[in-house]
Amino acid sequence: MDELEIDAVAEVELDDPVLVEGLPGVGHVGSLAVEHLLEELEGDSTLVRRIYSHEFPPQVSVEDGVSELTCAKLHAVTVPDGRDLLLLSGDHQAQTNEGHYVLTDAFLDVAEEFGASEVYALGGVPTGELIDEYAVVGAVSDESMLEALEDVGVEFREDEPAGGIVGVSGLMLGLGERRGFEAACLMGETSGYLVDPKSARAVLEVLADRLDFDLEYESLDERADEMEDVIGKIQEMEQQQQMDVPTDDDLRYIG
Amino acid sequence: MDELEIDAVAEVELDDPVLVEGLPGVGHVGSLAVEHLLEELEGDSTLVRRIYSHEFPPQVSVEDGVSELTCAKLHAVTVPDGRDLLLLSGDHQAQTNEGHYVLTDAFLDVAEEFGASEVYALGGVPTGELIDEYAVVGAVSDESMLEALEDVGVEFREDEPAGGIVGVSGLMLGLGERRGFEAACLMGETSGYLVDPKSARAVLEVLADRLDFDLEYESLDERADEMEDVIGKIQEMEQQQQMDVPTDDDLRYIG
Amino acid sequence: MDELEIDAVAEVELDDPVLVEGLPGVGHVGSLAVEHLLEELEGDSTLVRRIYSHEFPPQVSVEDGVSELTCAKLHAVTVPDGRDLLLLSGDHQAQTNEGHYVLTDAFLDVAEEFGASEVYALGGVPTGELIDEYAVVGAVSDESMLEALEDVGVEFREDEPAGGIVGVSGLMLGLGERRGFEAACLMGETSGYLVDPKSARAVLEVLADRLDFDLEYESLDERADEMEDVIGKIQEMEQQQQMDVPTDDDLRYIG
Amino acid sequence: MDELEIDAVAEVELDDPVLVEGLPGVGHVGSLAVEHLLEELEGDSTLVRRIYSHEFPPQVSVEDGVSELTCAKLHAVTVPDGRDLLLLSGDHQAQTNEGHYVLTDAFLDVAEEFGASEVYALGGVPTGELIDEYAVVGAVSDESMLEALEDVGVEFREDEPAGGIVGVSGLMLGLGERRGFEAACLMGETSGYLVDPKSARAVLEVLADRLDFDLEYESLDERADEMEDVIGKIQEMEQQQQMDVPTDDDLRYIG
Repeated sequence: MDELEIDAVAEVELDDPVLVEGLPGVGHVGSLAVEHLLEELEGDSTLVRRIYSHEFPPQVSVEDGVSELTCAKLHAVTVPDGRDLLLLSGDHQAQTNEGHYVLTDAFLDVAEEFGASEVYALGGVPTGELIDEYAVVGAVSDESMLEALEDVGVEFREDEPAGGIVGVSGLMLGLGERRGFEAACLMGETSGYLVDPKSARAVLEVLADRLDFDLEYESLDERADEMEDVIGKIQEMEQQQQMDVPTDDDLRYIG
Repeated sequence: MDELEIDAVAEVELDDPVLVEGLPGVGHVGSLAVEHLLEELEGDSTLVRRIYSHEFPPQVSVEDGVSELTCAKLHAVTVPDGRDLLLLSGDHQAQTNEGHYVLTDAFLDVAEEFGASEVYALGGVPTGELIDEYAVVGAVSDESMLEALEDVGVEFREDEPAGGIVGVSGLMLGLGERRGFEAACLMGETSGYLVDPKSARAVLEVLADRLDFDLEYESLDERADEMEDVIGKIQEMEQQQQMDVPTDDDLRYIG
Repeated sequence: MDELEIDAVAEVELDDPVLVEGLPGVGHVGSLAVEHLLEELEGDSTLVRRIYSHEFPPQVSVEDGVSELTCAKLHAVTVPDGRDLLLLSGDHQAQTNEGHYVLTDAFLDVAEEFGASEVYALGGVPTGELIDEYAVVGAVSDESMLEALEDVGVEFREDEPAGGIVGVSGLMLGLGERRGFEAACLMGETSGYLVDPKSARAVLEVLADRLDFDLEYESLDERADEMEDVIGKIQEMEQQQQMDVPTDDDLRYIG
Repeated sequence: MDELEIDAVAEVELDDPVLVEGLPGVGHVGSLAVEHLLEELEGDSTLVRRIYSHEFPPQVSVEDGVSELTCAKLHAVTVPDGRDLLLLSGDHQAQTNEGHYVLTDAFLDVAEEFGASEVYALGGVPTGELIDEYAVVGAVSDESMLEALEDVGVEFREDEPAGGIVGVSGLMLGLGERRGFEAACLMGETSGYLVDPKSARAVLEVLADRLDFDLEYESLDERADEMEDVIGKIQEMEQQQQMDVPTDDDLRYIG
């Protein structure tokens, strides 16, 4: 296998499609969002490319005993009454710094091949605390994109995210801009500790609003409810443990 | 030396051979299994290739003062009344992610050269606890291989191994499938804490059954007995230590 | 994107310019110094090159919502009544050993293109303690440069810096020398624990003296005052904590 | 600079020379030994090659303010009444696995260029305890070399060194053998905790005996005496500390 191989699984004619990236990251917000899109738009979507690379971990996933080599996948989606989409998903990011450059360039190559000139990178931004109101923080490759995204509720902040944006989402902006794409990163606030379907929903609502398509959220809400149950149980266990911890008074008895 | 060098040590005509891989991994199950095959089939086997690579650690082994550069070895085995075998063994795996891709491709190149189209990657799957009944868990590159392996007792499970299969065994499936091989991974259950000859025997029994050859296990059973002795001594020491640990009552005396 | 891309943003004719490097490092001395030069000489400076590379972290910075891909920047400065300058700045160093070689060579390529044959690498040398008198320690690629720098107060010491000079500053000397540049490294003493504008000023005073140009330090002094405030607060907190720590006497009460 | 550059500093005609390698490693035994050879044979030695590489750390050393880029050096030595020598020294080993392969190949290229067909890699083998009698353990690339080395006191042991030999010394054997060199590794026993001039002397005595040249050890013995002083002081400090440690009885008083 070459260092990078792009398998053409199918060909679909798209009209000015938008590339939407959702690889794993903080709170799995981006991957949850794109997986939800794939689920909801299944009837209109076709797997068009598989991208294999030495930059991915040397690994197969196994389901019901059958293996699949680590890759990224691109689905073409013809959205009824909306812009066509190219959805980028996968189980892994690149494993090296250089790999992020190599893979992002490959993703943009395919996007170009399908006629895309606009990119949305979906992800999460960690806040370090549990969230009530899920704001969506944005970054764009060009100032001209700010207004349209502010109109659908995206927040642009002076110095956020503080450390910049790392990995494929960051490079979608950085390399995208160098190659003439209009690229935006939509980051749902999330604690950073847990898989966060609510943050994914917040990001998707903004995206659907911006690209003017309809989306159901039932299955995503169910995952959010499951996560709430998990959080509840963890909190219970923590309270229980706290009650079992010896207090200063207990410790005095040791003497 | 080039990044990869394959030394042709000997040439042997094989008839539709099967590549069997057993490089070091969990519980040394795969390497124990292939070393046992080499020992038992010694009279019928010939070292045909040595594979050197920058991807191996920069290291020589030393025996009785004479050094040998780290490499992987391929032995051709003409099995009486059975399928011919190509046995892949070695002391080391690749040291980088990319190295696993590069070396697996090299191994498959040689397999192709000898006319092989079927691959068995042998290894262990860690359970985290001591094992009584040694099940063999499987994964295959193509659904069509499932039945024949189920017939010889291999278990295929819905979501196992949970994290997929990493390293050369995983890529034997993943790259093998892309290159037109039929590839299976046979993983003996093992605690994951110790070298496990019993797990290696379980894997070999399945393989011998599937490929229809006979095998003695005496020397492997002896190694298993030696390991039992080691485990016994460890457990004794642990019990002894537990008795020596000060109890809460002892600690009270400090005050 | 190729592994290395140099964008020509503008062309400026320079007369025998001096390359001054100030990438991030110990105490941010080098980057503070070059940023201050850029601020003070803004009216006379032009951004001439942006250098992008796979060796930089795969990252964009974000300001007011607009992203910028990690890069190094070269500004051409026509200094009134002084030698022309080429100022090298950026937010990141290379991420691998090899990357330092690759990027330093690229920086020297550009310097050569603009006719530079002299290089000053600015940085800090950690002392491990707070500094009163900010000495500037030097290293040069060729003995013939020692005297002129000693004349402006640079100290050359027998075995310092003890571990040599690592990263782009070190290679400016090492690779510079091999390519025929006259290269010097000017290292301001700094504790090594904090961003140190005072050390940056000490380095700049030496440089301005050597290259015979005038420089105001007001804004750098303001940053130094801000740092003094931060240090003061840290010391207060430490004293407070020390008073709260239980003494041996307190501990006896536990029994 | 290319990934590897070999500077020809001088040309010297040698008659069937022996390559002797002493890069940094366990107890600095190899580098102490080769530095001592360079010191003692200074009148007969010429620096012939400098080897620069991206595989070395990106670093300059500094002496009296003048920098030198990290490199390995080869000195040609015409030994009176003995075999000519090629001495390989330097401050650093390669920084990556692959780098060890690349650099060792480069070193052997130069050795070949000077007509060498025999290699001695000098180093230390850690024992984990202080040494009284400094044995020299050997490993050879070919069985035929064993006897001559046993005759000068080198010990060849069944399974030692247990983990094989890693780095440039190991590859001198492994790659050397593949390229037709006769290569031996001479490893002085050493605690592994300290720079060990006595172990270096033991190794040199064996080498001088094997290659039939005379060597003074005065300066090496002086360094050994200095180390003895250091060890003495450490032991004193440890004894002092041990006397200060509270005993179980002391601890009871806390309550």
